[in-house]
Amino acid sequence: MLLYNSQVSGNCYKVRLIAAHLGLHYERREVDVIDRSNRRELLGDLNPALRVPTLVLDDGRSLAESNAILWYLARGSSYLPDDEFERAKVMQWLFFEQYSHEPYIAVVRFWVAVAKAPPSQEELDAKRAGGYTALQAMERHLAEREFLVAERYTIADIALYAYTHVAQEGGFDLSGLPAVRAWLKRVAEQPGHVPITA
Amino acid sequence: MLLYNSQVSGNCYKVRLIAAHLGLHYERREVDVIDRSNRRELLGDLNPALRVPTLVLDDGRSLAESNAILWYLARGSSYLPDDEFERAKVMQWLFFEQYSHEPYIAVVRFWVAVAKAPPSQEELDAKRAGGYTALQAMERHLAEREFLVAERYTIADIALYAYTHVAQEGGFDLSGLPAVRAWLKRVAEQPGHVPITA
Repeated sequence: MLLYNSQVSGNCYKVRLIAAHLGLHYERREVDVIDRSNRRELLGDLNPALRVPTLVLDDGRSLAESNAILWYLARGSSYLPDDEFERAKVMQWLFFEQYSHEPYIAVVRFWVAVAKAPPSQEELDAKRAGGYTALQAMERHLAEREFLVAERYTIADIALYAYTHVAQEGGFDLSGLPAVRAWLKRVAEQPGHVPITA
Repeated sequence: MLLYNSQVSGNCYKVRLIAAHLGLHYERREVDVIDRSNRRELLGDLNPALRVPTLVLDDGRSLAESNAILWYLARGSSYLPDDEFERAKVMQWLFFEQYSHEPYIAVVRFWVAVAKAPPSQEELDAKRAGGYTALQAMERHLAEREFLVAERYTIADIALYAYTHVAQEGGFDLSGLPAVRAWLKRVAEQPGHVPITA
């Protein structure tokens, strides 16, 4: 398989992390996340959104959207429950991540720590407020649980871990979120875990 | 089943549309999308994101996120392919919808046509530009296809139809997107189709 990858992207890290857990081999092609001028040429036939990660299977078919890739690679493994309702709850958290978490926490981290070109303080504050709303929703849920779904480590945890564990790089303070911090530690202790730099 | 619903929400319409196709019966509880002050009280135990749609099953378990609900209700039906790769492509388009389409097209429609309180022209223009990017990605894909995935009507089409077919309410002009317009017509002609007002 070939992964169109950015080493700084939490969305790409999700794919690298599930691949590490599953022992999957793949090539990487690094894609610039600042200069996006070659995206149409590079990804136009592979991904309608022209984003990374984009995965090309050995038979040439391509798959986009980090959480769809997570789901596809994890099928049949312990990282995706068999029970239909538990699978739907995993999916619920995957959509929570892409709609209510990533657009705030990942975007602020990108502005501050990757592009190093933050917008106005007002925009930054608004995005940070949205990020804290997502983190507090996780805190309430994890206060009574070890993992997000089915009391075991699944791709829901992988998806939410990707940007939560580097939220500090965007200036988020996790000190008031003890359940989130304990969960981050549990995720990092899973067998086969690799850091975002791997 | 009980659906926490907003009649103006395209996300809720997705659930009403798949339920109509499948002949599912459910109760509705209408939730205010302007005054959100009672959300914690109403949805706090049911949905970490405190949003509609939220579905409560007959056994009391709840499921959130419109596209996760679509997937759960459609399982085993013709609206969700059996093939694992086709299912992953359906999921790819569901995530495209929530990340690259809804935050632009639905948000502009909400500002303009529902809340009737648009922000600055600059913010409106930026959101509209993001919406056209999504619509043009759909146009390129649909120029060679009848439906988004597997050449048949699936929940990927339902998810993207929900806000595309009312994009004009947000001031989007679809006249330059003939493949999208032909696809909207094909979706509306499916057996069991119901309008957003139903």
